[in-house]
Amino acid sequence: MAVYTDINEQELKSWLEEYDVGALLSYRGIAEGIENSNFLLHTTKGQFILTLYEKRVNRDDLPFFLHLMQHLARRGITCPQALSRRNGELLGSLAGRPAALISFLEGIWMRQPRESHCAELGATLAKLHLAAQDFPLHRRNSLAPPDWCSLWQKIGEDANAIAPDREGKLVPEITAELDFVNQNWPHNLPQGIIHGDLFPDNVFFIEDKLCGLIDFYFACYDLFAYDLAICLNAWGFHSDFSYNKAHGQALLSAYHAVRPLEREELAQLPLLARGAALRFFLTRAYDWFHTPVSGLVVKKDPLEYVAKLRFFRQIKDISELGLNS
Amino acid sequence: MAVYTDINEQELKSWLEEYDVGALLSYRGIAEGIENSNFLLHTTKGQFILTLYEKRVNRDDLPFFLHLMQHLARRGITCPQALSRRNGELLGSLAGRPAALISFLEGIWMRQPRESHCAELGATLAKLHLAAQDFPLHRRNSLAPPDWCSLWQKIGEDANAIAPDREGKLVPEITAELDFVNQNWPHNLPQGIIHGDLFPDNVFFIEDKLCGLIDFYFACYDLFAYDLAICLNAWGFHSDFSYNKAHGQALLSAYHAVRPLEREELAQLPLLARGAALRFFLTRAYDWFHTPVSGLVVKKDPLEYVAKLRFFRQIKDISELGLNS
Repeated sequence: MAVYTDINEQELKSWLEEYDVGALLSYRGIAEGIENSNFLLHTTKGQFILTLYEKRVNRDDLPFFLHLMQHLARRGITCPQALSRRNGELLGSLAGRPAALISFLEGIWMRQPRESHCAELGATLAKLHLAAQDFPLHRRNSLAPPDWCSLWQKIGEDANAIAPDREGKLVPEITAELDFVNQNWPHNLPQGIIHGDLFPDNVFFIEDKLCGLIDFYFACYDLFAYDLAICLNAWGFHSDFSYNKAHGQALLSAYHAVRPLEREELAQLPLLARGAALRFFLTRAYDWFHTPVSGLVVKKDPLEYVAKLRFFRQIKDISELGLNS
Repeated sequence: MAVYTDINEQELKSWLEEYDVGALLSYRGIAEGIENSNFLLHTTKGQFILTLYEKRVNRDDLPFFLHLMQHLARRGITCPQALSRRNGELLGSLAGRPAALISFLEGIWMRQPRESHCAELGATLAKLHLAAQDFPLHRRNSLAPPDWCSLWQKIGEDANAIAPDREGKLVPEITAELDFVNQNWPHNLPQGIIHGDLFPDNVFFIEDKLCGLIDFYFACYDLFAYDLAICLNAWGFHSDFSYNKAHGQALLSAYHAVRPLEREELAQLPLLARGAALRFFLTRAYDWFHTPVSGLVVKKDPLEYVAKLRFFRQIKDISELGLNS
């Protein structure tokens, strides 16, 4: 939830002259998006999202993200589109930050997703993976397993404070898990462009039909099945962090029906899901200690992902996740 | 900037069935409004603001605020309007809080208001005072001078921490000021319904024309000239907190042209402005210590109002504020 940078109306008006969007009627900061500042704009020609990219997003990556969204939309994956400026560029600069004017997407994200939503998500994720296969740009995953280790080192001693009642047992557990996952991480599975962050708040529905995906700012080149493993973490649990097998089954089978998972992908899925749980544990733990107290972001509890990690660690077969291999 | 309470799509959809607004297309939390949680809703019939009233707003006051906005709109003061539910009520309950669905107002608030904006504001403030004269409901000002003293007592020892470099001089200064203002506060000036919080972020403009006022949740029965004194604090200073006489003049003369100020109002304006500076100093100081660090609100520096207080304290005549009496 964030507006890190406010904009004054004068600079906004002159910035908008570079676009063919009519006259400005209103702009309001919106309380969504963790990485960037977002405003909802109304003009005489419609409504738009104005995004100011804050320092957590690497400026050099922005053309990758913005062109990927164009590429996907042309292939039927509905997602926000950056508008072209009069000079043809998708990106400008406002209040000292890279900034883009982006189409507004209607839709609601599900605070309490149901089975049918998980199925919609699974099918769309597979379509996204297929649609991006001929996307020409490349971006490495800056949050891949080796990066998790350096994140863990940066957290350092702070880690003990996350779960003070565990008598220091959490730190060796995570360290051992990182070692195991890094040593056993598969590299020869089908890969391509993944979204990398398809949590419920990035998936919009209207009348229970999936109508769009947003927030491609973690998209990168990586294993398709890892993207699915992320979704399993994000959509496959009850609110008490116990596994929701019906959700897992709906997600996995719908994906499998559009892009059939290879035998090795199925075999590695529990390990990939363990890795995804670790990745979100680590970024949440890091944010827990490094988000300024005056920040506008609601901190998320990293321990949720310790519970998920432990669940995936004891999975022996994909059928326990809900898919019959 | 605030969304204190999130709503899930199920409860929102069933809540909306009580309104004639069509089907829900999207809702986004907006990063404006300090007292309440606000969402911008799109439905098949238009766009609306959904407000959940948080605990700082007294539920018993809500009918006053909502009916006042209706009353003013009927008399040409553009402001948000609560929609009627199927049972005729303006107020419902959502996520355990009183909630209203309110018309969306286009417009931009001026981060850097100019003279012409101050003039627009002055004229509209006077019109508001006149338009509300026959409004039948009553609400006492819960932030009147006697309340300032209890606020000051609640702040107590914390006050020294606001300006640690002043060697404890701020506390006696504020205490003396409170005594003086309380003893000399006028009671027999023209009074009626005042807005009470017309800061720039509550005044919308399109193409430099004032097009609407929002946030009536401090509105109450009090001295008209005190409302003007609040605006003088909020609009009449440069960013270094030195007085902007051109702004003050524009605001005061435009008000005076619509509702001529009586001689006694003019004479008391510097004292009322001192009081208004104290009031905002005190609420900011209180919030400084009582807003939880995990809060989503950007804290505002109370010392801004110490500077303004000192300016108004040395004013001998209204002409120094820009109006020739």
